[in-house]
Parts: sequence; C-alpha cells; structure tokens
Amino acid sequence: MPAESRRPQWIEQAPPRDSYRAIFKWGAPDRFYHPKPGLLGYLQERLALGPDPWRAPRQAGTTKLRPAAAPALDEIHAARLTAIVGPENAQQDGFSRTRYAHGQSAEEVLRLRDEAPAAASDLVLHPRHKEDVAAIVAYCHAQRIPLTVFGGGSSVTLGVKPARGGVTLVMATHMHRVLAFNETNQTVTVQPGILGPAYEDYLHHAPERCAARQRYTGGHFPQSFEFSSVGGWIAALGSGQQSSYYGDACDLVVSQEYVTPVGTFTTADFAATATGPKVNDIMKGSEGAFGVLTAVTLKIFRADLGGRKCFAYMLPNWLAAVEAARRISQGEFGMPSMLRISDAEETDAAVQAYGLNHPLAQRFLQWRGLNAHQRCLLIGQADGEKHFAANIARRSGRICRRLGGLWLSGYPARKWAHGRFLDPYMRDDLYDMGVLIDTLETAVPWDRLMQVHAGVRAFITDRPRTICLTHASHFYPQGTNLYFIFITPLMPVEAYCRFQADIITRILENGGSLSHHHGTGKLMGPWMEQHLGPEQMAVLRALKRHFDPHGIMNPGGTLGLDGPAAPAD
Amino acid sequence: MPAESRRPQWIEQAPPRDSYRAIFKWGAPDRFYHPKPGLLGYLQERLALGPDPWRAPRQAGTTKLRPAAAPALDEIHAARLTAIVGPENAQQDGFSRTRYAHGQSAEEVLRLRDEAPAAASDLVLHPRHKEDVAAIVAYCHAQRIPLTVFGGGSSVTLGVKPARGGVTLVMATHMHRVLAFNETNQTVTVQPGILGPAYEDYLHHAPERCAARQRYTGGHFPQSFEFSSVGGWIAALGSGQQSSYYGDACDLVVSQEYVTPVGTFTTADFAATATGPKVNDIMKGSEGAFGVLTAVTLKIFRADLGGRKCFAYMLPNWLAAVEAARRISQGEFGMPSMLRISDAEETDAAVQAYGLNHPLAQRFLQWRGLNAHQRCLLIGQADGEKHFAANIARRSGRICRRLGGLWLSGYPARKWAHGRFLDPYMRDDLYDMGVLIDTLETAVPWDRLMQVHAGVRAFITDRPRTICLTHASHFYPQGTNLYFIFITPLMPVEAYCRFQADIITRILENGGSLSHHHGTGKLMGPWMEQHLGPEQMAVLRALKRHFDPHGIMNPGGTLGLDGPAAPAD
Repeated sequence: MPAESRRPQWIEQAPPRDSYRAIFKWGAPDRFYHPKPGLLGYLQERLALGPDPWRAPRQAGTTKLRPAAAPALDEIHAARLTAIVGPENAQQDGFSRTRYAHGQSAEEVLRLRDEAPAAASDLVLHPRHKEDVAAIVAYCHAQRIPLTVFGGGSSVTLGVKPARGGVTLVMATHMHRVLAFNETNQTVTVQPGILGPAYEDYLHHAPERCAARQRYTGGHFPQSFEFSSVGGWIAALGSGQQSSYYGDACDLVVSQEYVTPVGTFTTADFAATATGPKVNDIMKGSEGAFGVLTAVTLKIFRADLGGRKCFAYMLPNWLAAVEAARRISQGEFGMPSMLRISDAEETDAAVQAYGLNHPLAQRFLQWRGLNAHQRCLLIGQADGEKHFAANIARRSGRICRRLGGLWLSGYPARKWAHGRFLDPYMRDDLYDMGVLIDTLETAVPWDRLMQVHAGVRAFITDRPRTICLTHASHFYPQGTNLYFIFITPLMPVEAYCRFQADIITRILENGGSLSHHHGTGKLMGPWMEQHLGPEQMAVLRALKRHFDPHGIMNPGGTLGLDGPAAPAD
Repeated sequence: MPAESRRPQWIEQAPPRDSYRAIFKWGAPDRFYHPKPGLLGYLQERLALGPDPWRAPRQAGTTKLRPAAAPALDEIHAARLTAIVGPENAQQDGFSRTRYAHGQSAEEVLRLRDEAPAAASDLVLHPRHKEDVAAIVAYCHAQRIPLTVFGGGSSVTLGVKPARGGVTLVMATHMHRVLAFNETNQTVTVQPGILGPAYEDYLHHAPERCAARQRYTGGHFPQSFEFSSVGGWIAALGSGQQSSYYGDACDLVVSQEYVTPVGTFTTADFAATATGPKVNDIMKGSEGAFGVLTAVTLKIFRADLGGRKCFAYMLPNWLAAVEAARRISQGEFGMPSMLRISDAEETDAAVQAYGLNHPLAQRFLQWRGLNAHQRCLLIGQADGEKHFAANIARRSGRICRRLGGLWLSGYPARKWAHGRFLDPYMRDDLYDMGVLIDTLETAVPWDRLMQVHAGVRAFITDRPRTICLTHASHFYPQGTNLYFIFITPLMPVEAYCRFQADIITRILENGGSLSHHHGTGKLMGPWMEQHLGPEQMAVLRALKRHFDPHGIMNPGGTLGLDGPAAPAD
C-alpha cells in the first residue's frame, strides 16, 4: 500500500473546455472518484508496474480539439435541416461534431486521449419533438443523408459512431419529457432522451409531480445509469444491476412510437396479445438501424414496499458459487433483484481493494475452508413486498450455507450498492497512470458457463501482465451472463483493438453470446453473421430493407447489416 | 332442475367412423362429460328453452363423410410429395382431407354438423422428421403449392383451414419426440407435434425417463391441453390456465428450429442476449405463415416443490373483483399461477350450475353484503416454493378481505382445477340440444377493462335470449384478458358468423386486442390491418415476403397477410 507521502497527484479539475478530454472523461466534468490505496497496491503488484506508477498521472487529451475536416454535408442540406429545428438547435463546430460522435468504448477513449478522434458527424441537430424527428428523417431519407442517434452517449460498442458522417440527432437536449403517467396500469410514457436520474427522480416523486398515490421506480440501473438514456437502454437491449427481478430493458417496454423512413407508428399497449409477431419486439434492440424511438411506455414498480434485504456469502470456490446462483435462479421463490457472483480472482481483488485482508479475517476464512485464490463472493439484494423479499434472502442463504458458504452480513451488498455508479469514474485515473481497464460481457446457458469462463480467462491471462476479473450479475433460470474485466498496461489503440477482437472471438468459440446487454454496435457488427448465421442475418436485412431502403439509419456496421466482416483469426 | 324421470338421453357412443361428427366431436371419441342438472336448469330458464329441451338431443353429423371434390393437386405433385414421406404417411381420401382441414371454431363445428365442410386439403402428409419437412417445404415452394400445418387441431380461429387447398402437414403423428432434456439449464427440446399430456407426462417422469434428479412441469395448461400441441401453443401465442406465474407460451420458448421456404435455422439458446432484434421472437406467433417449427427448446419448472395453495373469495361486485386482481398483480409478492375473476353473471351461473344456491348460503352471503347479480367470485392458486406460494395466498387474501371479500376456502379453486379440461366436452351436448356456446377473448390494459367489458357485454346481451358470462384469467401488472362466453339458441352458420364478426368489431371499438391467446388465424385476419395499422402490417408483410416469397405458407388470410378485409359494419 502506498505510503501517505507518495499520495497520487490525482487530477481534480474539470477538463479544459472544448478539449478531447472534455469528450471522453466519464461522468460529470467536475466529479471525481479515485482508486483506493488497496486497489492501487493490488494493481502495482499484479501488473508489475514498478515503483510509484501513480505519482504523476498523465492527463491526456487536454488540448483544444482540432477539427479533422470540414463537414462533408452539402451546405443546402445543412441549411434545410437547420431550418427544421432552428439555428439554436443545430451545431456544425468541430467540437460538437466530434463530441456527439463518440461513446465510451476503450477504443474511442484511447483515440481521444491520442487526440486523434476516429469519427465526426457533419451536422448535429437537437430535435425539440417528434415532429422535428419526423421532418429530419424524411429529409435524410429523401436526400440519402446518413443519420445517427445519440442518447446518453454511454455506448461501449461504437453505437453512436457516425461511421459515414451525416447528421447526428441528440435526443437528451429537449426530448426528455414525461408524456404520461398511468398509475392504474403502472406505466409511464416518456421521450427517449430522458436520462436515468431524471427518470427515476420523476417516478420517486410521483406523488408530488402528478398526484400519484404511491412512489415508484423504473427498476433499471445500468452502471451507466447517470449518463444513459431510456431510449439507449431499449435500442441496445440493456440490463441493469437489478434486472434479475425487474427485468431487462426489453422486458420493461409496454409500447413504443417510432419514426422510420417509411412512416411513423405506435405499438399497442396490451400487456400481452396474440396478434402475430410483435412489431413492438422487433424494434427493441434495433440500435437506430430501423428508425428513431420518439416515445416509450414502460412498466413501473412500487418503490415504497420496504422489502429490501441485502445478503452476502463467501463460497469455497467458483463451482460452488455458480451452483448457488443457479439454485437460487431455479428455486421458484422469486428472483433477487441484484445478485452477483465473483470468481476467485475478482474475489481476491475485492478483498485486497477494500482492505479486508486483515490477517485474523484471513485465518478465520481459511479455518472455514475458504481459501484465497479459490473462495468466491456472492452478494445479493431482494426487493418487492417485504415477506416476499425476506423469503428470497432466507432461501438464498440456505442454498449458500448448504454449499459451504459463510454469511458475511448484508454489509458487502450495501457497500457495493453505495458505490455502484462511482466505479466508472476511476477509469480515467487508471488510464492516466498507464493502466488500461476494459470489459466484455456475454450471455451463457448454465451448462456452458464453465467453458466460456475458463476459455476466455485463459486467453486473457495468457497475455503478460494482464489481470482478468470475472463475475456473473444477471440471472435467469436458464442461464446467466459473464462479465470479463481485463486490466493491463496501456497499449497503442491498434494493438488494443486486436486484443479485444481476439477476446470476442474466444467468447464465440467457447459458446457465449456476442453480447448480453451492451448491444452490438459497430464494434460487434463484424461478428454478427458468424454468430447468428446467414438465415437469421437475412431476416434482419429484410427488416432493414423494409424500414430503411436507402440505408441511411445508423449505417456503417450496425448489427452487421452493412459493415465489414469479422477480422480473420 | 329436471326431474330424474326426464333425464336427458345423452349420446354416449363414439361417433361413427369417417363421419362428420368424428371430425368435430371434442376430445377422445369415447369420452363424454355432460352438463349437470344445475347448468341445464340455468340455461332452460335464461334462454327460455321451453319444456325439456334436452330430452332428445339431435346427434348431428353422424353420416359418413361425402368428399366434396377430387383433390385439385396435380397427380405428379401428389406422387412426388408422397414419395418423400412414403405412401404409409400420405392420405388423399376425403375423410382425411377434411379431418385435417378443420379446427374447433364454432363456425367449423356448425358447418360439420350441417354436413357441409368448408374446406379440404388436397393431400395430407405425416412427416417423420425434420428432413421430411424440409423436402416438402422445398418442393411446395418450387411448385407453388399451398402448405398448411396441423398440430393438435384445437385452433378456434380457422388456423388450420387450408383456404387454398394444397398440402396439410400433420405434425402429431410422428414428430412428437423429446429430443433433449437438460436439467442443468432446466430446458427440454421437443418436436412440435407432442401434445400436452405426453409432454407433461415426460417431464413429470423425468427421473424414470432420463435419470433426472427432480420431477418437472412445463407449466402450460390451456383448456385445450389434452388436444393441443406444443408447436400450436407457440405458433398461436397461447396462454395456459397457470400462465400468470409460468408465463405465456411465448415466454417459455428458449430457442426454435424452423424450416422455411428460404432455409432452415436454429436460434441460439441464451436466456437473454443483446444481439439485435431476436429472430426467435419474430417467429413466435407466425401461425405457419413464415415456416414450419420443427424443434423447440422450452423452459421447464420444478414440479415437486409442494407449495401449491388454493384460495377463493366472494367479492361484493365486479369493480371490487377487478381491483383485487389488479392489486394482486401489482403487489410485487410474486404472481399466483392461476387467478380468475368472474363477473356477476358468470358468478351467478357458477353458483346455480354447481348447485351452490342453497337458501341458507344465499342468506349468509346477502347478510355479508354479497348480493346476487352483483357479487363476483375470485379463485386462485399459487405454485412454486412453499413459503413463496403461501405468501402469495396470504397477501392475496388480505387484499380481497380489505375489499369486502369473503373467504370461501380453497374448495372452489380445487374443484375448478379438477374439472378444468372437461368443460369443452359439454359443447357437443349443448349444440345437440339446440344451444350454441362459443367464446371470444381479448387483452385489455387495466384502465380499459371496464369499457371493454361493458361495451361488449351490452352488445352480446342485446341479442334476445343470449347469455354473456365473462371472466379474466390471465394477469399481468399492466393488464389482463377478458374472456367472453356467449350462449344463445342455435342458429344457421351464416347468421352466427355475422354475430361473431359484430362482437369482434365491438371488442376493437372499445379498445381490446384482437386476441389475447387464441392467435388470429383466418378468422381474425380481416381485422389485422385495422387493428395494427398499415405501418405495422407492412412489417409483417415484409417478413412474409422474405420467408415465403411465393405465398405458399398457410395462405388465405393468416395474420391478415393475404386475405379479405374486415366485413363492413
């Protein structure tokens, strides 16, 4: 652990205005959350970083952005499109064109740190309402101008990259209103640009805002909660940290309104209906390739039931942790809202990072057969009606204890919940000190979990000075996800992209899905054909041809519809 | 109530071989379940049937079927198609061509009772396996021969009607095997022709059949359970009587294999995945218009948790019953597997039909403010882990009592469960005695329930001598279904079709869905464009063009893709 005298000189100033860093820095410009000494010590040791690597972090990307090129869009088009939203809602300066062309993937961050952004749109528009969107889509369709939608900008899959330039629609500026609140049906209708906190705040304050009888929650808490939009959740089929109970984003959608090049429509608001394949489902996950979501009706949940129960157990090994999670998921006593199992390496990292490695505690754990490098942490939280939630915690505990688990109180789960949206803030600090951290996630049926975990982990850790921490955090009776966090010394962006592509290939080779909840974007697009097979890709292409005959909607690789094929292995 | 001396002369012989009645009689040929005296008395009174209407039921349709016309299929095609499956699996006799051309809609039953069937296929084939299906589909595609799939034959929406003749594929004859059982993932993979009882039997006996550690259930129990196929459940987006907990058929599907005119594919088996719009979802509810389902992997559930709890309450009125069901559905303590609320008319009918109208009981109910013609029955059943199920029953009871409900013990729910697959057997008896009984069902959000219930009921009961019993039986936090049962003196088929069309129109006018769980078939097809709107219909048509460019798959109105428009009001 670094001595106080060697305290890192963390950056605590907002990035300079119009700088590259102002684009990529995670979260609020003036908010910071730095790695704790325990974590730094762990990284120093495991990555063999040499003495005091964090003494003088390199604050990359602080110079003023130099626009790469003039907009390629014909001036007459720019003028006509600007006239739709008004000049105050149109931008063509280099910073805006670059800012709204980038999400939060490691590739994008690395390029921006290098002050060499990969993409820029030609014109940024901030539509005020559905009518603006409809007019813009119609114009772009008629004039064959590419159109990309920017929600909260938290995509980690190049989802907002305007690969062929054109127009970027920024939804969060104006289209963030609550359109209807229906307490009888327990639904809310919102515009897609509303971000997580505003959405949740409205629901929590429903009694004050719209005279509701109860307080509500949307139940969707992705790690990007603070800077992701409701529209993005649906477009990329997101999951949140409590989705095992509340459902993934796709499960929350009751009905949607879309503007597409071939027309505008609203799907019906039935909880279930047997009138053929559901267009409401077809649009979910379409990642802007079919149309623009302009309104969505979502399920909401009671926020004041007071049932929350937190629990945590240490299990002897990964096999036992997986077995515990599977038995909980298949136990038919309701699902915990949050459940997370960490593999041995992530568990060791957590123990060290949080300074929980007191010799006495270590000895007690070992005496209980819970050895370092083997033991695995399970944390959980149950929500809903209080007897329902209490029973979930009780049944889950029983399962864990039968598998040799040791009860750790509710503290670890509460601690995790407390800091859950802060962790991404550490990324820029780590990059600044020369440590690259990134993640890839996949879905697995239970019977392929071990293979995917072992196969992908082996590949990642085969790389020198590379840590791989893995957890599963979204649970279903039939399977779960695997979330690989890999940490390695910073490398050039091209080298990183090759490494990342190789990991994706290993995930598929071992039987995982291309994505559990990050969508595919232009990052995963190249593998789509291989992953889904030509027959299913042909279905997606038929839908693309129908909705977007001129190929203007989020072109350049989205869903693998019009981009390059996967890199050869 | 009819005296013993006037006991109806119910028919108790299996229908004559190759007769019209052999096609339409519900269920096993030699199984009968007759209306009870209480029900007969109720009908006699309410329909003003005159004295002893049930003394001499008219056993319609008992003559040997006379084939309407020779098969229209070219002999060379018939020979080539027969060669694929072998002559022992091909039929061209008039009875088979008619039998597999009919489902169980009132229209089909009325036409068969009149010995004037409406449709016949040209060739009936019983494929042995996926390869047979692929060869047949390829041949029909190349030669533009219409192809209709017949599962269990319980469609009530003209789903199996070969509207343009051609080939009918009968899936239940050979393609009823269990292909894989995966206890780790809690899934089973079956061929689509397996019927409910065989499917459930396999899962219940999994320890004996495939050395499973536990017993399982598929959790899907439509009223047609005994004579519906797993493939049909998925093709028509069915729901079962316990779907509020286990999920509708579409929720149970993990992955599917389809043979389509443009190729064969299998969707992936991930419990969730974020790789774009899901072809697995697109195929559900496609009602044979896109391709033939040849294998499906389904979720299964523990059958031995011993948690079952039954409960029943009498509530003061329909408003209170609806409110109770809504609070239960939104209570976040887990869903009852079965829940049913009957409106006042259905409640009165149940009280009379089951002989529960003892004067003392009546007086007690009235003393409790539960008056005839107002009070409404709620019955429920909770499944799953025993504390989970007990809590559902307890919470549900608390909600009912707060709304003025009187606990009726678990008896009514258990009684209902006992007879739940028998009721359809009464249909033929009722028709024989001149009483037409049929149903239409719809989905409603909670806030349109009252309007749809009142509007549709008013229309139905406006018809002289017509009873309308209504219940809701499938529940979601955001809404429910309404199931209208209408009973009226028998009428000519054309008059009935007009009446039925008018009810469908009223359902839509009042804001209900065209179908909650019966699919749309060729019966509802004409309303699809009006119901979904032209933009969404265009999406379905684009998918149709992709999968079936020659329009051979279940043509003639399925999903409204190629049939007539709705009759003018």
